[in-house]
Amino acid sequence: MDQALDVIIANNKLKAKAFLDEVAGKNPLFICTIGTTETGKIAGISAAGANPEFTDYTPPADAELLLLGKCKSIAGVPITPDGIPTPGLITRSALQLADIPVIIANGGVRVKPQIPFIDLGGGPGRDIRTGKAVDNAAEIIERAKIVGAQLAKAVDYLVIGESIPGGTTTALGVLSALGVKAEGKVSSTLPQNPHSLKTETVRAGLAAAGERFGSLAKDPVRAIACVGDPMMAAFSGLVAGAAAQVPVLMAGGTQMSAVLALLNLLEPDVLCNVAVGTTRWVAKDKSSDLKGIVTQFCDVPILAADLNFSKSRFPGLQIYETGLVKEGVGAGGASIASMAKLGGAVTADLLLKEIEHNYGVLMGLK
Amino acid sequence: MDQALDVIIANNKLKAKAFLDEVAGKNPLFICTIGTTETGKIAGISAAGANPEFTDYTPPADAELLLLGKCKSIAGVPITPDGIPTPGLITRSALQLADIPVIIANGGVRVKPQIPFIDLGGGPGRDIRTGKAVDNAAEIIERAKIVGAQLAKAVDYLVIGESIPGGTTTALGVLSALGVKAEGKVSSTLPQNPHSLKTETVRAGLAAAGERFGSLAKDPVRAIACVGDPMMAAFSGLVAGAAAQVPVLMAGGTQMSAVLALLNLLEPDVLCNVAVGTTRWVAKDKSSDLKGIVTQFCDVPILAADLNFSKSRFPGLQIYETGLVKEGVGAGGASIASMAKLGGAVTADLLLKEIEHNYGVLMGLK
Repeated sequence: MDQALDVIIANNKLKAKAFLDEVAGKNPLFICTIGTTETGKIAGISAAGANPEFTDYTPPADAELLLLGKCKSIAGVPITPDGIPTPGLITRSALQLADIPVIIANGGVRVKPQIPFIDLGGGPGRDIRTGKAVDNAAEIIERAKIVGAQLAKAVDYLVIGESIPGGTTTALGVLSALGVKAEGKVSSTLPQNPHSLKTETVRAGLAAAGERFGSLAKDPVRAIACVGDPMMAAFSGLVAGAAAQVPVLMAGGTQMSAVLALLNLLEPDVLCNVAVGTTRWVAKDKSSDLKGIVTQFCDVPILAADLNFSKSRFPGLQIYETGLVKEGVGAGGASIASMAKLGGAVTADLLLKEIEHNYGVLMGLK
Repeated sequence: MDQALDVIIANNKLKAKAFLDEVAGKNPLFICTIGTTETGKIAGISAAGANPEFTDYTPPADAELLLLGKCKSIAGVPITPDGIPTPGLITRSALQLADIPVIIANGGVRVKPQIPFIDLGGGPGRDIRTGKAVDNAAEIIERAKIVGAQLAKAVDYLVIGESIPGGTTTALGVLSALGVKAEGKVSSTLPQNPHSLKTETVRAGLAAAGERFGSLAKDPVRAIACVGDPMMAAFSGLVAGAAAQVPVLMAGGTQMSAVLALLNLLEPDVLCNVAVGTTRWVAKDKSSDLKGIVTQFCDVPILAADLNFSKSRFPGLQIYETGLVKEGVGAGGASIASMAKLGGAVTADLLLKEIEHNYGVLMGLK
């Protein structure tokens, strides 16, 4: 536990503390990177949407929630099939509490959000079982690098999150292509992590692309093109462009390990200026192993917001403690950034109160 | 002349000096707002492109020049029919000298730039003689407001420029609809300002829309929709969203008077936090009257970069002194921002040297 903030350090304590010291009191810009893929629609692979076809609407709706406090592309907010609301609610609450600005970066979506967003020239991803997941990965990365480099000149530091259903499966795909052992280690929005389905999907994708475990260990762009997704092209480009100039908090769960593995090849120098920011639910998850993936190839610090919803007055939030959802839309990193900006003024308890307030309003509860 | 900087004050000396004091040493973000219209293709109305059809490529190419230092959508750089290069060269040079970051906001273009840009949901504008110039002006304004408000939280201040061929004609259109007398007062990229052609075009547009001079004095959104362009919807939204929080330097010539007239209705409170930044060529132009338009409805300061190319070693730059081009892509405002950021370190002379260097490289000259 960090002495001052409700933040758990899950890897590289020394550098984690240095990172927190560096960003303390600073004013970040939060970028939510969105994408959709046909991979996210494979039955049983993602809970980021009420049903598989609905996953096309989850990222644009999350983006709208962050900017407007409500969604436009859908009624209500994105929910799991069980009715559990998007972690974007956590992100929105955390950013509002500390008045942290937000912009949206579109890696490639089928349904465009009804708010302003940065267009990076990408379209939605295909099912990775085709072996042809993303058409123009190199161009998306290049454009995202330009944005990252420009924004880094203007702001203290960046916090970058993501919303893409099925993202842990494409993460497993890219990690496997790059030769990082991640089978059984990626996280899930579902309490029963469908590891074998993810593994089968990735193996089918690699086979269709004529690739195998580790065969793309020197070709990160092709790894995305074959078995990745447009979000990670955008995300890795943003970090590659920005982190040479300013610290970057990579806000997400095990998907961040795939982005780190890509950066380790695309722009390895920047790894000294990044940290992963996630939630306690990911850091403590028994069905996944973020640290175990990351430390195979680098030693970046991993921070986790010490959120605990067990005492929430809403059952819909309490259920996070059972392992449902866990992370997404940069919820953990946004919480950490909110705490770091205002120091002791934002605690995990205060954050829960704000989340409960927003949850109540959006769900029409008291 | 400001005591410290090569800046001419063309209106409201007291507030102009206060504005310069406020932004001195600060780190702005430059936003280039782009758009295209069929109005820009009316024969003889614009020189922002080698020929009328080419005007579709000028704004995306300008955007690419600012971010990459070269164009992708076209070979070389945008030029007038006489071969005079885009004022984007001045902007690029000024921003580079002071390491000022840039992002592109797309109000609505036919040809998308091959670089990252903020999508505001707009498409290219029609010929204003149809009386139906812009389809979704209200939505573009609203989305731009969101971006302006978010970016203002992250940066010291904003400098906003534009690239839209035919923009002074649509400016005259909106000013006329709003009841501001601007016939014979808007500027031109051409040395012989085609005032009567612009006036005819605007009158035809107002008639087609069933409107007349001043009939939309209380409906700025409809003024854009009938006889405006998508750039000004984006530009006015950005200022409306940002200037409540941070100063905004509106970088442009007489088109800025139309944006100010819109803001005077959309968000009048922000006018106390803006200044117009233009070039000496606009401020001293005998064939237009920026101050004469603006002071009909407000008293915002007008600053002009004291650029003088008469002693340039390149004839293609010397020709700016004859009244060709004059302004565009925020050239004047970017020059002022560059000087203000680094104080005495950036002078008009140093700027000319940098412009000549970049001109030589891009035009393949020595």
